[in-house]
Amino acid sequence: MSIFDDELQQLKEKILKMGSLVEDAIRNSVHALVERDNALAIRVIDNDRLVNTLDVEIDEESIRLIALRQPMATDLRFITMAMKITTDLERMGDLAVNIAERALELNEEPILKPYIDIPKMKSIAQGMTRDALDAFVRKDKQLAIDVITRDDEVDDLKQVVLHELALFMVKDPSTVTRAMKISFVATYLERIADHATNIAEMVIYLVEGKIIRHTVQPSEKK
Amino acid sequence: MSIFDDELQQLKEKILKMGSLVEDAIRNSVHALVERDNALAIRVIDNDRLVNTLDVEIDEESIRLIALRQPMATDLRFITMAMKITTDLERMGDLAVNIAERALELNEEPILKPYIDIPKMKSIAQGMTRDALDAFVRKDKQLAIDVITRDDEVDDLKQVVLHELALFMVKDPSTVTRAMKISFVATYLERIADHATNIAEMVIYLVEGKIIRHTVQPSEKK
Repeated sequence: MSIFDDELQQLKEKILKMGSLVEDAIRNSVHALVERDNALAIRVIDNDRLVNTLDVEIDEESIRLIALRQPMATDLRFITMAMKITTDLERMGDLAVNIAERALELNEEPILKPYIDIPKMKSIAQGMTRDALDAFVRKDKQLAIDVITRDDEVDDLKQVVLHELALFMVKDPSTVTRAMKISFVATYLERIADHATNIAEMVIYLVEGKIIRHTVQPSEKK
Repeated sequence: MSIFDDELQQLKEKILKMGSLVEDAIRNSVHALVERDNALAIRVIDNDRLVNTLDVEIDEESIRLIALRQPMATDLRFITMAMKITTDLERMGDLAVNIAERALELNEEPILKPYIDIPKMKSIAQGMTRDALDAFVRKDKQLAIDVITRDDEVDDLKQVVLHELALFMVKDPSTVTRAMKISFVATYLERIADHATNIAEMVIYLVEGKIIRHTVQPSEKK
């Protein structure tokens, strides 16, 4: 294996490491909300700096590889897409931090209702994140397409959650502050799924050399 | 001027063009909301495909330049940052579309109250967008720092808007649906300002060769 192959392999491992930290953050932030676990919420917030460190490292390593190794074709696309993917992963980490922050606030107040659809949204978004990154490092187009199709389920669940929360607020004004916070959690999860979709779209570009972003009308995204 | 200088200049112009389309979208989406102008909202939604076309063109042109010209140091950083910046600009365009979609929905119902802080948020976010891109193409570090400092004003205004909307919902349950939609508009504008901040942080990297992202704790971002 050449030095360059070895360097590419290390870059892949860093991206998977970053992805696995983000996956943990998504799962733990929702767990902190559902189980009212403040210590776990604080851990999510603290651990975000590990994600941020990898974000910077991957960017710097990518630019170094391009400058020194002058990769062509697929390798160049892989490295430039890696730099774009870190932007998505970093935002996903921030969104998990936002969920943890709302969890800390909501844990101060009585439970509005048991969470049912929020954990479902979390499971789908987390699975999309894992599969999008697997698809990226394995250049697996079919898996990437599969990730993209799952985005609608998350959007539909978000609409269900928002509708239900609106009913709570209408019936009982004392629920307004909590319901607004839970509605933000639902939008954070929906955005996490959007970022996973973006990553999957980049995988297809990587494999096909063709950019498929924006083939779905943005007005269909919420 | 070399061919490469000329190609770089064209890349800069495309980025500025994309930025100017996004600025128009931000301004017009809020205008459509405040003036209850459905035709303008639909124009914002339609025009987003121009933003998306430029997004793909800039990415493809950047990869082509890296592969053919093998640029070093500052030029390589400029081109790779251009690819990351298009991701931010494209999301900002999507967020303007989201504002236009909420405007169309809100225009179906009676006005809740005159909009005061939302247009203020819009003006700051729009100015941040313009200045972040100017700072990028001119490699102006001071202007980039100035953009980053303005982000707090947008965050503060968002908190004011959300607080006021919560009061409306508590006092009068018939306002819940509208107030939730307006609260989403406030969060879209806040995210537009966050993206402008990300672009400004990349400018500092471009100028200094040092990544300053994440020197602000993510928990301070809302």
